[in-house]
Amino acid sequence: MLDGSTLAIICGGGSLPFAVADSVIGRGRRVMLFAIRGWADATAVQAYAHRWIALGKLGQLCRAMRSEGCREVVFIGQLSRPAVSELRFDWDTLLLLPRIARAFRGGDDHLLSHVGKFFEERGFNLLGAHEVAPEIVLRRGLLGRCAASSRDLADIDRGLTLLQALSPFDVGQAVIVADNHVLAIEAAEGTDAMVARIAEQRQLGRIRSRKGVGVLVKAPKLGQDQRFDLPSIGPETIERAAYAGLAGVAAIAGATIVAEPVRVATVADRENLFVMGIDAGGSRQ
Amino acid sequence: MLDGSTLAIICGGGSLPFAVADSVIGRGRRVMLFAIRGWADATAVQAYAHRWIALGKLGQLCRAMRSEGCREVVFIGQLSRPAVSELRFDWDTLLLLPRIARAFRGGDDHLLSHVGKFFEERGFNLLGAHEVAPEIVLRRGLLGRCAASSRDLADIDRGLTLLQALSPFDVGQAVIVADNHVLAIEAAEGTDAMVARIAEQRQLGRIRSRKGVGVLVKAPKLGQDQRFDLPSIGPETIERAAYAGLAGVAAIAGATIVAEPVRVATVADRENLFVMGIDAGGSRQ
Repeated sequence: MLDGSTLAIICGGGSLPFAVADSVIGRGRRVMLFAIRGWADATAVQAYAHRWIALGKLGQLCRAMRSEGCREVVFIGQLSRPAVSELRFDWDTLLLLPRIARAFRGGDDHLLSHVGKFFEERGFNLLGAHEVAPEIVLRRGLLGRCAASSRDLADIDRGLTLLQALSPFDVGQAVIVADNHVLAIEAAEGTDAMVARIAEQRQLGRIRSRKGVGVLVKAPKLGQDQRFDLPSIGPETIERAAYAGLAGVAAIAGATIVAEPVRVATVADRENLFVMGIDAGGSRQ
Repeated sequence: MLDGSTLAIICGGGSLPFAVADSVIGRGRRVMLFAIRGWADATAVQAYAHRWIALGKLGQLCRAMRSEGCREVVFIGQLSRPAVSELRFDWDTLLLLPRIARAFRGGDDHLLSHVGKFFEERGFNLLGAHEVAPEIVLRRGLLGRCAASSRDLADIDRGLTLLQALSPFDVGQAVIVADNHVLAIEAAEGTDAMVARIAEQRQLGRIRSRKGVGVLVKAPKLGQDQRFDLPSIGPETIERAAYAGLAGVAAIAGATIVAEPVRVATVADRENLFVMGIDAGGSRQ
């Protein structure tokens, strides 16, 4: 699947694109970063061979990738839904718009699948970040020294079952469960805002479970195209979870990106939180 | 089912207990309000025959209800989960605590069913507010002048299906869906906080759908004991929904309390929102 060509990394926001680039470079492959204007970190991108691109100009992007000799592409980094008024389209993108508009009504997964198909129709092979940079993927078991209690494991399983039930609705990838109670379900607000809400409610005395009880459970949506938008965990995730008084964080092994595993483990140990890679079928398989 | 005895109304917070009392009195039946200290509105309760009671003293409450000749009981009003440290128990409640503790682990529904059983075992008949005060129950169809568009109806149906999928998890009674996207799912934060979150995210430019798109859908949990905790809609619900830029509010006819239907309709008309009572099976039955 991986050929020797220069890997095109289309970079959204955050540090993940650079973790992926470092990993690929470390394995001796050339990369070219296509940094999305307004999203990619302009300072960090300087350290790599890169070109700036505009959202909404997919045709231009394809020509640029071709001229760099790229045949394989990875999409990585944050990319909130842009305001349509800020977008400037090229013709290729305009011709794709009716398909995008239909896809938007069906949730993001569908939109991304359509963008994926667009690249594939033009001869590019779209890969997942976990395929090109396996060392930034969460492994099964504990990351750090803290272990999950049997109550935590039960909370993880309840959270997973809930996420599976939500899957047909193309919504949230995370829930918080404490002592069998569902405290929060992520939708449009994103995981960080959801965890912050629990911290806030705890301060208001509205969370009944005591500090050190409760798990943040993250999972990709069933049927989600893992070449886009895999759940990710970073040191900030652990810090936020600690601030919200949780016992730990669980996510699907093999389908969650941990860009900085050593820092994640350090923060988790310091905050006395567990971080656990689990199977999609549950914590006790 | 309704006998002629004085109706015991156990009053939590908010205005609903008084709307129920007015409705029952208006039909010529005597009521006695048992106002929960720390929750019931101390000013409003003055206008009615009432006695103050303490949470955690169920035995005392039963004796008081018996001495007032009450055989039928309604539970109504807000009652957030109390901090256990603030509770003072009587013996009857203490003996019930192991059952309550087990029930707590299974979610609120189970807790309330146990409290319900406690009253029934002591010879009281526990009724739902909708049974004693049918005029404060949402009816099928529109309340106010604004109608739902076909997109709104589709959003309502998606929200209902999602709430049904969540039902086994004993969680939230409300979601917000806009143009087929699930924007928010209620868990521990409550409906008001969930709607406020969408208003906030809209101001931050993080909600893609334009103002006037999106529906707040409320439904009781499947299998929920309707003698407790029916969803309710008030003028503030409509105001919050308007502030969040929604098109309207839909809830289950016959299983939603609207304490002030005239004010709800007035606010909805002023804010150009629809308010709709729907069947549990969907908006188009």
